[in-house]
Amino acid sequence: MITQVLIGILSGAAILTAGILIGHYGISQSSSGAPPSWLKDVAKDVDESLIEKFLSEVDNIQIQENLRELTKVPHMATTAGDEQTVQFMLKRWQDPETGLDQAWREEYMVYLSFPDPKNPNKVTVVSPSDTVLHTAREKEKSYTPDQDDPEVVQPYAAYSPAGHAKGKLVYANQGKPSDYQLLNQTIDLRGTVAITRYGGAGRAAKAINAAPYGVLGVLVYTDPLDINDGLMSDIGETYPHSWYLPPSGVERGSFNTHYGDLLTPYLAAKEETYRIPAENVTGIPNIPIQPVGFEDAYTLICELGGEAAPAAWQGAFNCTYNFGGPGFKSTSYFNNSDVKLDIFNHEEVKNSSNVMGVIRGSVEPDRYVIYGNHRDSWVHGAIDPSSGTSVMLELTRVLGSLVQQGKWRPRRSMIFGSWGAEEFGLIGSAEYTEQYFAKLSERTVAYVNVDIAVFANATLRASGMPSVQNILFAAAKQVDAPGLDSTSVYDNWVRYANRTSPALGIIPRVGYLSGAGSDYAAFVHYLGITSMDISYTYDRTKTNARIYPAYHTAYDTFDYASRFIDPGFVSHQAIARTAGNVLIRLADSLVLPLNCSDYAEILEDYLGTAMTLYEHQLRARNISMEPLKRAVASFRSAAAHLDRVIRTSDLANETPLKVRRINDQLMLLDRAFLDPLAFPNKHAYRHVIWASSDAGKPTFPGLADAFATAESSGQSRHWDKVHYHLSVLSQAIEGAAHTLVDVI
Amino acid sequence: MITQVLIGILSGAAILTAGILIGHYGISQSSSGAPPSWLKDVAKDVDESLIEKFLSEVDNIQIQENLRELTKVPHMATTAGDEQTVQFMLKRWQDPETGLDQAWREEYMVYLSFPDPKNPNKVTVVSPSDTVLHTAREKEKSYTPDQDDPEVVQPYAAYSPAGHAKGKLVYANQGKPSDYQLLNQTIDLRGTVAITRYGGAGRAAKAINAAPYGVLGVLVYTDPLDINDGLMSDIGETYPHSWYLPPSGVERGSFNTHYGDLLTPYLAAKEETYRIPAENVTGIPNIPIQPVGFEDAYTLICELGGEAAPAAWQGAFNCTYNFGGPGFKSTSYFNNSDVKLDIFNHEEVKNSSNVMGVIRGSVEPDRYVIYGNHRDSWVHGAIDPSSGTSVMLELTRVLGSLVQQGKWRPRRSMIFGSWGAEEFGLIGSAEYTEQYFAKLSERTVAYVNVDIAVFANATLRASGMPSVQNILFAAAKQVDAPGLDSTSVYDNWVRYANRTSPALGIIPRVGYLSGAGSDYAAFVHYLGITSMDISYTYDRTKTNARIYPAYHTAYDTFDYASRFIDPGFVSHQAIARTAGNVLIRLADSLVLPLNCSDYAEILEDYLGTAMTLYEHQLRARNISMEPLKRAVASFRSAAAHLDRVIRTSDLANETPLKVRRINDQLMLLDRAFLDPLAFPNKHAYRHVIWASSDAGKPTFPGLADAFATAESSGQSRHWDKVHYHLSVLSQAIEGAAHTLVDVI
Repeated sequence: MITQVLIGILSGAAILTAGILIGHYGISQSSSGAPPSWLKDVAKDVDESLIEKFLSEVDNIQIQENLRELTKVPHMATTAGDEQTVQFMLKRWQDPETGLDQAWREEYMVYLSFPDPKNPNKVTVVSPSDTVLHTAREKEKSYTPDQDDPEVVQPYAAYSPAGHAKGKLVYANQGKPSDYQLLNQTIDLRGTVAITRYGGAGRAAKAINAAPYGVLGVLVYTDPLDINDGLMSDIGETYPHSWYLPPSGVERGSFNTHYGDLLTPYLAAKEETYRIPAENVTGIPNIPIQPVGFEDAYTLICELGGEAAPAAWQGAFNCTYNFGGPGFKSTSYFNNSDVKLDIFNHEEVKNSSNVMGVIRGSVEPDRYVIYGNHRDSWVHGAIDPSSGTSVMLELTRVLGSLVQQGKWRPRRSMIFGSWGAEEFGLIGSAEYTEQYFAKLSERTVAYVNVDIAVFANATLRASGMPSVQNILFAAAKQVDAPGLDSTSVYDNWVRYANRTSPALGIIPRVGYLSGAGSDYAAFVHYLGITSMDISYTYDRTKTNARIYPAYHTAYDTFDYASRFIDPGFVSHQAIARTAGNVLIRLADSLVLPLNCSDYAEILEDYLGTAMTLYEHQLRARNISMEPLKRAVASFRSAAAHLDRVIRTSDLANETPLKVRRINDQLMLLDRAFLDPLAFPNKHAYRHVIWASSDAGKPTFPGLADAFATAESSGQSRHWDKVHYHLSVLSQAIEGAAHTLVDVI
Repeated sequence: MITQVLIGILSGAAILTAGILIGHYGISQSSSGAPPSWLKDVAKDVDESLIEKFLSEVDNIQIQENLRELTKVPHMATTAGDEQTVQFMLKRWQDPETGLDQAWREEYMVYLSFPDPKNPNKVTVVSPSDTVLHTAREKEKSYTPDQDDPEVVQPYAAYSPAGHAKGKLVYANQGKPSDYQLLNQTIDLRGTVAITRYGGAGRAAKAINAAPYGVLGVLVYTDPLDINDGLMSDIGETYPHSWYLPPSGVERGSFNTHYGDLLTPYLAAKEETYRIPAENVTGIPNIPIQPVGFEDAYTLICELGGEAAPAAWQGAFNCTYNFGGPGFKSTSYFNNSDVKLDIFNHEEVKNSSNVMGVIRGSVEPDRYVIYGNHRDSWVHGAIDPSSGTSVMLELTRVLGSLVQQGKWRPRRSMIFGSWGAEEFGLIGSAEYTEQYFAKLSERTVAYVNVDIAVFANATLRASGMPSVQNILFAAAKQVDAPGLDSTSVYDNWVRYANRTSPALGIIPRVGYLSGAGSDYAAFVHYLGITSMDISYTYDRTKTNARIYPAYHTAYDTFDYASRFIDPGFVSHQAIARTAGNVLIRLADSLVLPLNCSDYAEILEDYLGTAMTLYEHQLRARNISMEPLKRAVASFRSAAAHLDRVIRTSDLANETPLKVRRINDQLMLLDRAFLDPLAFPNKHAYRHVIWASSDAGKPTFPGLADAFATAESSGQSRHWDKVHYHLSVLSQAIEGAAHTLVDVI
């Protein structure tokens, strides 16, 4: 009986269990709706353990070896060395074990400028009897075998016109408009040649500003004061003994005001794209210009006659910097001599490649997190740009391995771009944004740029839209500062560069992307995509160098990088960890980690400055700043509202379309600040908050520039432009605020 | 034993059942995830029974009563009558039983032009001795009490400058450039006054084209040939006996080439917005122009001397239309007399309101389906625009009732706009798109415009982007054609206007929105939003009237509409049903009912025309059309791909983010065709496929215009513009194609 009962109980239990199992798994729940398999995926948030894993796998030695490979030969845009790096990137990104889902190249036919190897540019001092008294170096002095590579391009000013200029030398400081203006008060500049130093004005501007005064040609050099903390000698002082620039080192560069291919503005430079006639290109020098080393600059400047230049114009040479007579002192060996430029640059339309790679998103493949850096250098480009490329390759190796092993796939898609021809004017990235304008505008969450990953090994430096501050902080807090015990990158950063936020107290200072210094430009200014730029940089108490001294010279080599910039590659590693952390958070967070209240804080700061600088004079002209004040207040209150919605919603359990709605509000915020007509002279600048500005005021760029013009001319049509721009600006900010409030 | 076995089986079955029940309901599925309540909502598709219900509830008598109320008094923009309609709309949309979720007004300060009631415009014939021999009517003749309303505005040409013009009369046909050119071959036009007839050229153009020839003033009238099928007499022939225009009827209008507020281009016209100086306004007449009735035109034209005008210039008057001597025949009573215009129009910045209403979307509130029509008329505006407003109010009554009763809420949000000051240049809708540019660009699925709902009661007429063809067909098939037994609106339509589609065979012909004829303009051209315009219209075998004859006259009244345009309001009802059906499908369909392959077909058609018209000459100038061909082919293949994805996906059971992704591709398709720099002279036109064009060719507008300019000038810089525009166009189409392929 007991047995029977037991059997009965047992069989009853078995039947019950079977029933339970059938009930649980066997009945299709289509009527009440079975929980679909995708439900967990769409609600998934960023996985902190994945980030831990990522951080631990980022390897400094891998970065070092990437850099060694990338810097084997010079890889100036469109050269054989460039093609070698294209192949290297493709090989890495197509690796079945550590590569991305897909990688390919995209080509553009772009307008570049080169010197002629058979007919090198020449700078000479020529006596009245046509004797050459001095010839500037044509190539930098060789200290390591790198510099002997025949592919090291002669120092030159890309886009300087070919031509010959001969005249008495004058010293024009930094070649700013005010410099030439001052100089012209003392000297008739017609027929002269000006020597200028780097800094203070854009490269092209040094020549463009000179031409109206009748200057025939311009030289430019890097003063040891600005780059070497005054040091000048290669006997024990400069590279290869330190990171400082040897006397013959010359900064190359693009002498070009605009960004993107110059012949195809606002269009992708494809083979059959319409090209404007080369003579219609604007923003490049109209007189020859050539860079020289400070060794040659010393020889020229210290012999100059005329009055002594003002104190602010003096550099590190052990002589007084005179204006020039024009020309040299009567006591000089060069007395009565001219300086002569013979420039043989030529322009050429050449095929430049971007290398692209993607990791497909699992849940929202139509949302892109883009990470990029240029690939082309001037010479070996160990720091610029290969430090960044080495970091990118390490980051894609770690992420690619996780993907290839099936351990992880990001929620959103990741796109990696290795841009071509950046050094000539951010060309590869600009053409990419022109070609894919609609798609990128609609779908891009953010762009992360890591160009020069490590300028120096002291501290993190980051710039970006204010909405990314939070994510930079979160990432930097999780990474150990290189060379410091139990200090995070964040804690180290806040010591070097901080500000007091009304809302958050003392925090690291995040810079703004208002210029066009690297490939973020087209993303920020043309597409209005939330962007950031990340690097490791200087301890400013230890150097005044305007940039790392080997910048754009033949000395920017693996040896230089590994011995003087980042021995052990630990700062590179910190950047890879920080940038990768940012990237994963952007790709995997359920709610995008972009903060619109931080944006409001910066708009308020800009507004405060604008009120202080402009309100009094504008009121006197019946131009009210009230609409701008109201717009910023609307933005603040809309941002607070959206923050509240995010904070008080249980988004993991609500419809995925609600998360998507909020994410779209965050993603598209910067797009709302675009106005393609806001800056009629520079349509590539459309973001009314971050456009470039000449006025140099820490406030809204278009307003500052319009005000400066009106104030200096006093013309009522210029005051009208101020009023016009105030309306453009106020309405853009109101428009952005409208996108943050309840969607209906 | 049997009992025992039976009990055993039964109890076993009971236990099993209990187990099943426990398994099915008892185990919390939170581990695997309980099906959340929103799951069904996000997968829901359009409910056909809801559409049936909607169609059955649309009531013709309600529409009739709406119209009666809206046309009680003249309601020209910003007048007291206009305010009365604002209040009426608000009352209806805020009604707790039949209204929308929310309704409000939005105000803009806009630049309008009015005649002076105390100093009416005058057109006279003046003899050499200054005797007034004839005075044109100042007001239209009264047939019903409506026309006696003191608020009936004197016929005038809005934006014609005030001024006095006196000169010998000439007849200039339609005032096209070619008309003045031809006339000028016979007559020295300097110092003359030209009389022109409506049609063939824009209103403002008739004066703008005349001024360069030295013409001092222009008259414009409607020839009975163009509007009345030749009929002229108000004794038994014209209104109130028929729909035809009485002899004194005058078409008013905006004499303005651009759309939107003229003083605040590309900015919302708020109180403190920067306004350009009035003297900088372009696109309006620079010499006085005034419209008159054909009664007065007859008196003037039949007395003209000079040669007989060409056959194509002859109208319906029973006399020969001569060019003018200039001036009248020597045998005329008016011999040697001048025609004199005394115009006292003045411009004024006035407060104009849009009335806005919304129904909040349940699942995707951040997706907008916008439906709109203007509210302002020239006089009583029974047909233009109140027929459309009556339809809109009936549609919102039915939808609003469903919402207020809790029976329905659309998946996406619906926004209703009752635009102000359309008659002066689509101002209310244009300002709205300027103010909310970012938000509307990001979120709007489509715009549906129903302005004049019923021109005549013969057949549906619809225009729109090619992607809406399908939804128009689907809606029209479900609506009964008014006055016909068991014939659908679709079946009736295809008889009146059809074309042969390569893919679909014979289908109704859907027109294009390439002009700026109504409030869709800013949505199409400025925002790149997929739009359509819907109305009921003529049987072209029965009339040649260029528009319904009372258009913009004092005869466009309730009496006119209800007796001659749509007795019984059954065509209005058909429009309300068709447009409402479209609206519900746009708002409720799981996958947006927009078809990109239909877009491809039209691009191919445009391409074919362009190849035929231009390829030969372009090839001779080394301008290749291959990039355009490739772009259209890319678009076709991308569209086919997206169609296949939609067809082969089980979207109701996949993640809602996949549906959203596809819907975003469909929604944003037209946005990809925008290029704010494509038409430098008209930045309000940014859609490279549908922009306005002067060339009058059924192909890409910018290409056609650039080609026409180059062909006529022969200048190489103009051929360069053709090449440039080909690149703009090819890249826009490629860009659009990129948005349709796999998102990564």
